[in-house]
Amino acid sequence: MDKEMEKTRLSSLDIPALTGERADAALPQTPSRVSVLDRWMARKLLDLLGNPPLTFVLWDGEKIFSSENPSIAKLHFQDSDVLQKLLMNPALHFGDLYGAGRIEVEGNLVDLLVTVYRALATAPKYQKLKEAQTRLFNRPRSNRITNSRDNIHHHYDIGNDFYELWLDREAMQYTCAYFPEPDLTIEEAQRAKMDHICRKLRLKPGDRVVEAGCGWGGFALHMAKHYGVTVKSYNISHQQILYARERIKAAGLTEKVEYVEDDYRNIKGKFDVFVSVGMLEHVGRDNYRELGDVIHRSLTTAGRGLIHSIGRNKPERLNAWIEKRIFPGAYPPSLREMMEVFEASEFSILDVENLRLHYTRTLEHWLERFERNAVIIENTYDRAFVRAWRLYFAGSIAGFTSGTMQLFQILFTRGDNNDIPWSRAHLYKE
Amino acid sequence: MDKEMEKTRLSSLDIPALTGERADAALPQTPSRVSVLDRWMARKLLDLLGNPPLTFVLWDGEKIFSSENPSIAKLHFQDSDVLQKLLMNPALHFGDLYGAGRIEVEGNLVDLLVTVYRALATAPKYQKLKEAQTRLFNRPRSNRITNSRDNIHHHYDIGNDFYELWLDREAMQYTCAYFPEPDLTIEEAQRAKMDHICRKLRLKPGDRVVEAGCGWGGFALHMAKHYGVTVKSYNISHQQILYARERIKAAGLTEKVEYVEDDYRNIKGKFDVFVSVGMLEHVGRDNYRELGDVIHRSLTTAGRGLIHSIGRNKPERLNAWIEKRIFPGAYPPSLREMMEVFEASEFSILDVENLRLHYTRTLEHWLERFERNAVIIENTYDRAFVRAWRLYFAGSIAGFTSGTMQLFQILFTRGDNNDIPWSRAHLYKE
Repeated sequence: MDKEMEKTRLSSLDIPALTGERADAALPQTPSRVSVLDRWMARKLLDLLGNPPLTFVLWDGEKIFSSENPSIAKLHFQDSDVLQKLLMNPALHFGDLYGAGRIEVEGNLVDLLVTVYRALATAPKYQKLKEAQTRLFNRPRSNRITNSRDNIHHHYDIGNDFYELWLDREAMQYTCAYFPEPDLTIEEAQRAKMDHICRKLRLKPGDRVVEAGCGWGGFALHMAKHYGVTVKSYNISHQQILYARERIKAAGLTEKVEYVEDDYRNIKGKFDVFVSVGMLEHVGRDNYRELGDVIHRSLTTAGRGLIHSIGRNKPERLNAWIEKRIFPGAYPPSLREMMEVFEASEFSILDVENLRLHYTRTLEHWLERFERNAVIIENTYDRAFVRAWRLYFAGSIAGFTSGTMQLFQILFTRGDNNDIPWSRAHLYKE
Repeated sequence: MDKEMEKTRLSSLDIPALTGERADAALPQTPSRVSVLDRWMARKLLDLLGNPPLTFVLWDGEKIFSSENPSIAKLHFQDSDVLQKLLMNPALHFGDLYGAGRIEVEGNLVDLLVTVYRALATAPKYQKLKEAQTRLFNRPRSNRITNSRDNIHHHYDIGNDFYELWLDREAMQYTCAYFPEPDLTIEEAQRAKMDHICRKLRLKPGDRVVEAGCGWGGFALHMAKHYGVTVKSYNISHQQILYARERIKAAGLTEKVEYVEDDYRNIKGKFDVFVSVGMLEHVGRDNYRELGDVIHRSLTTAGRGLIHSIGRNKPERLNAWIEKRIFPGAYPPSLREMMEVFEASEFSILDVENLRLHYTRTLEHWLERFERNAVIIENTYDRAFVRAWRLYFAGSIAGFTSGTMQLFQILFTRGDNNDIPWSRAHLYKE
């Protein structure tokens, strides 16, 4: 993406809720005095974060900053406890404290987070702290079948109405879209994403497709409607399965698509195509080999498949706050780790595409709609919920923009299958 | 590739030298009798190979075959010693025995090898034997800098004249070509390969390119001539460097391209682009991290790169005969293993393309020209040399056709570089 384009796009997100939301309302009536220790902690925190160009505003109005660059945003801290918590575990506590309104951001939240993420990447003290924490604490929740159900329920069963407020209106795709042209609407880009995958898989009428993790069922419906295939889609989110069944009935395609409320490990039958969009993040590293076995036993001899997943450039735990509050059990693997799914069964990787900046764009669309509906959401849930989701969107945009998160589409087939496309030109023909 | 196309193409290789080259000339004057033990060994060998549809013809004319399928080729064995050796280490000794004329093939050598490779993939006894041998014997030669020079000298310094007889006539590319249309000539396809890589790297005038492993220098010359870049190319093959310098002088591009006779580990300077085509196979697994360090210190902050290499679906030693006689020290890694080059320096993988069947096509072109010049080559070297190279070509075709070998192009950039192409559509525009 061209630098100018990136800038234009991000600054178009200077919507009121993200800028100048001052902390006055949240400040306690009689703030305690700022001590020498507090000042020391504030400086220590800046140092830990790699001295990004930020200003910390303490509860009595005192400003602490790294002298070198002009600040791109101000962070208002409510009390000394905020500083102590941030020093202990910045990734985890920033989320909770921001959610509770004990930290306020003056400036653009996305810009702030991109700046911090970039600074952290080369901040030696932060890297050491993160490594120690990875070793000692916060092991990701396991993904045995029973835990997986809890983990998925936590996020995906919040309520379909909530997701309808900000996802694309056609297919309810809660995964990275594909923008052949950067200015598509989110509806067009989600359609383009589904078609891009279908082209990669060379779907043809009559193909039997199995889908592991189907969300609200929009992709299965799209494949059945536009490619004449039959689909069996697995998902353990009860709310999503109910929604998907409603939609497929309304579309008159119940003969073509079956939604199964079950774990991918229980997939049964033989299929020409395996596809999974946005599920690998929830599978957990210990289970990659087993996922590979499931694909191996489910595919025909000329079978082919595609896995679409958030990933990393190197192994690294998910942000502690996201992992604890938003996506329990989630882990975005590096490409090397992903290969554990494929190697044991000797699948052949045909094509890997990294769509990182397409996820930035997708999230910008989601956040824009989310903000437009923030009042409704706050009335249904509460202020902390809105703030947590805002931070989650902004943090994800920052992750994909700064390059700490990747989005990989991996196309594969049986190792001895020669019925493969001669080149990738067919993906780019009108 | 469509099955029909594959068939048409392979059968067009029924050139005289590969078919019906009968063994009579090589048979000893008074063949020893075939014993019960010999028959037992022959059956044991068929079983070890997974009972492919072949006929073994023993030295007295007796035929041994698996009953199930009609034979696709006949193997004539000269004596009992041949059987003993094949049972011990079929991969290694088949090459030596075929080279020495003690095994003759009646039928198409490529078809024979494809059939055997496919049978081996599911032959439990062979898989066990291979695993044991991998553990116990034949560790690949190390690739410390001094050994690397020996290893490379062994193959690439045979003589430029030899390679000129069968490589493309324009750029002497001894690596997989790219056939946007399957019917291109090898010259067109090598040009297309170079342009495909240049497009992936988005070369622009003034870019400084470093090339690790440059063969006879054809790619560096192409980049300088058609993309206006400057290139510094490293190679430890003395013969190739001399040849490359001649060619660049004749093209009047000595200002643009510098050929350095040195190891990639000694690359010095800062570059916008790193490219390596067909060298990773010779780097050796122990050195991937170091190669990553070299790339890391050589690239600018917005640097990008591409590695083009033979690979595997899962880790597996190179065929023992190829590794011993043809490419000492070579090892084609799996994609997971290749990631060791990139992870430590947090490079971001943008695109992986598997061009396996393009290598089949490339090798078919090479073999066809090689056979047309077989008499010249036999006069310069000897009959065993011609037979060894014929087997090497045919075995490689079989490897890429049966899916035991892959060809990966891996495009990468710095993890925090956002100056990346928005999609891959630009690769497929006219």
